[in-house]
Amino acid sequence: MQQIALQHEQLFIGVDGGGTKCKARLESRSGALLAEAVTGPANPATDFTLAVDSILQACEQVLQQAGYPITALACCHVVMGLAGVNVPRIHSQMQNWSHPFASLTVTTDLHIACLGAHAGREGAILITGTGTAAFSIVDKKQSYFSAQGFPLGDRSSGAWFGWQAVCATLDSLDGLTNETELTNTICRALGVRSNTDLISCCLSYKATDYAQLAPLVLRFQQLGDPLALDITKRGMDYIQALFLRLLKTGAGRVAMLGGLAPFLADLLPEELKQHLSPVLGPPEVGAVTLARQLFTEKSA
Amino acid sequence: MQQIALQHEQLFIGVDGGGTKCKARLESRSGALLAEAVTGPANPATDFTLAVDSILQACEQVLQQAGYPITALACCHVVMGLAGVNVPRIHSQMQNWSHPFASLTVTTDLHIACLGAHAGREGAILITGTGTAAFSIVDKKQSYFSAQGFPLGDRSSGAWFGWQAVCATLDSLDGLTNETELTNTICRALGVRSNTDLISCCLSYKATDYAQLAPLVLRFQQLGDPLALDITKRGMDYIQALFLRLLKTGAGRVAMLGGLAPFLADLLPEELKQHLSPVLGPPEVGAVTLARQLFTEKSA
Repeated sequence: MQQIALQHEQLFIGVDGGGTKCKARLESRSGALLAEAVTGPANPATDFTLAVDSILQACEQVLQQAGYPITALACCHVVMGLAGVNVPRIHSQMQNWSHPFASLTVTTDLHIACLGAHAGREGAILITGTGTAAFSIVDKKQSYFSAQGFPLGDRSSGAWFGWQAVCATLDSLDGLTNETELTNTICRALGVRSNTDLISCCLSYKATDYAQLAPLVLRFQQLGDPLALDITKRGMDYIQALFLRLLKTGAGRVAMLGGLAPFLADLLPEELKQHLSPVLGPPEVGAVTLARQLFTEKSA
Repeated sequence: MQQIALQHEQLFIGVDGGGTKCKARLESRSGALLAEAVTGPANPATDFTLAVDSILQACEQVLQQAGYPITALACCHVVMGLAGVNVPRIHSQMQNWSHPFASLTVTTDLHIACLGAHAGREGAILITGTGTAAFSIVDKKQSYFSAQGFPLGDRSSGAWFGWQAVCATLDSLDGLTNETELTNTICRALGVRSNTDLISCCLSYKATDYAQLAPLVLRFQQLGDPLALDITKRGMDYIQALFLRLLKTGAGRVAMLGGLAPFLADLLPEELKQHLSPVLGPPEVGAVTLARQLFTEKSA
């Protein structure tokens, strides 16, 4: 039945590709969910060939799951939101890929995350996971903030919170500040007793290692630990500045995403909390919604 | 003549070994300068064999310059202050080297720099070059502070000042803060116009790259640039905390060393300035002075 319908049927795929996995979502023209699939890494800035493989596999899987032949790729209008395509060269390389689809639009992971969070409508997102990033889309104009990478930037990210906790612990081990429950807990958690131990321990630390210590800071700030309160205050100063910047672009609604988001959203002042919007859907929903929107605009 | 005297003569060599070069200074028992030499890299934590080669070459060169045969190494009492020997494993490896000297004492680069700065007497040093480090020796007890390496620590170092200037520039390019003469100058100096440009530019930056921007911050804080003033204030808070910590060890005198030292010393409050001590000599003088002191103690 479906194979007979193929000639005139339009299908829509949203792809969310990142450094660890690639998600695809197949929808009909009316927006009915037909299938979802998850495959391997798809960051074209890290490995272009691997990214293309993961994307194709994910698209083939959703078609197969929904009962279509692989040739139906030629009926698919695809929007992909990918990490790494904020670099213009990578964006061109991806957009110029001789793909098997009916149409392909390449955009950033932040763009589709924002569309997903606001169910396809315009707005803004503020992400605080391992890293920090902010994005808004207003009157089709995209604006990007933060996302400078750790340790250059990414203030108030999980990595930043954990790193600041290590710095505060080093100062207490140096006798520059008093030890607190936070610094004692960091020492116990990492099995270190001295400044030299802690430096050696952190020599090979990456953003994800520091991010694992972030929950400790948030827990101890709730208990009134002075160093945890100081770190959290400095983090929140940055989050508030980013939040205000997003509102200044004209985005009335800001959705906060990422592991730290629930904790940091709680600490916002009331006048900002009123602009908070719940996260309505995941990035791949944002991508497939955009695919349908673009097709409708072109057909109109 | 000197060869005849060799059997009973005691010679003293001070070695200052670091990542780029190795300096040796030969003195007589009375403290007369006989010769000085500079050879290649001598950081045993980076390359043990190369370090040993550079040290031996430097010691042989000073003997030759002073007219002694190479066999006179057996009459030399040597103190080496080396980068990297703060790691216990590296210290043991170096101290257990089957050297050709009459005696060998291995200590840290900070220890001999402190002895050099205070002409062989006890005291403290606070170094702000590319990195930040502090050290004191009081009643023969050595204390080490800071020196955590960039970007983990090294606050108020040249690398930290430059890095903070880049962070401030990123915030101004994000529209989170107003641009200032400092941020405009950073953009011009690095040839960047956007946030993305600046992030790309700094992706491969090392401590020494950031340190090259430090003089800009110090120049603009003198001109009242608000961002440069904020960076300098935060840097000086740390320097003052380190300075007070050094005084707390019982060190009455603190010598400030490194490229930023003259600028930061000027910004200290008067009650700390009165504890400042001029830098009386270089590290290799500290090393050779310690070599003579240790020999005198052992002979007494």
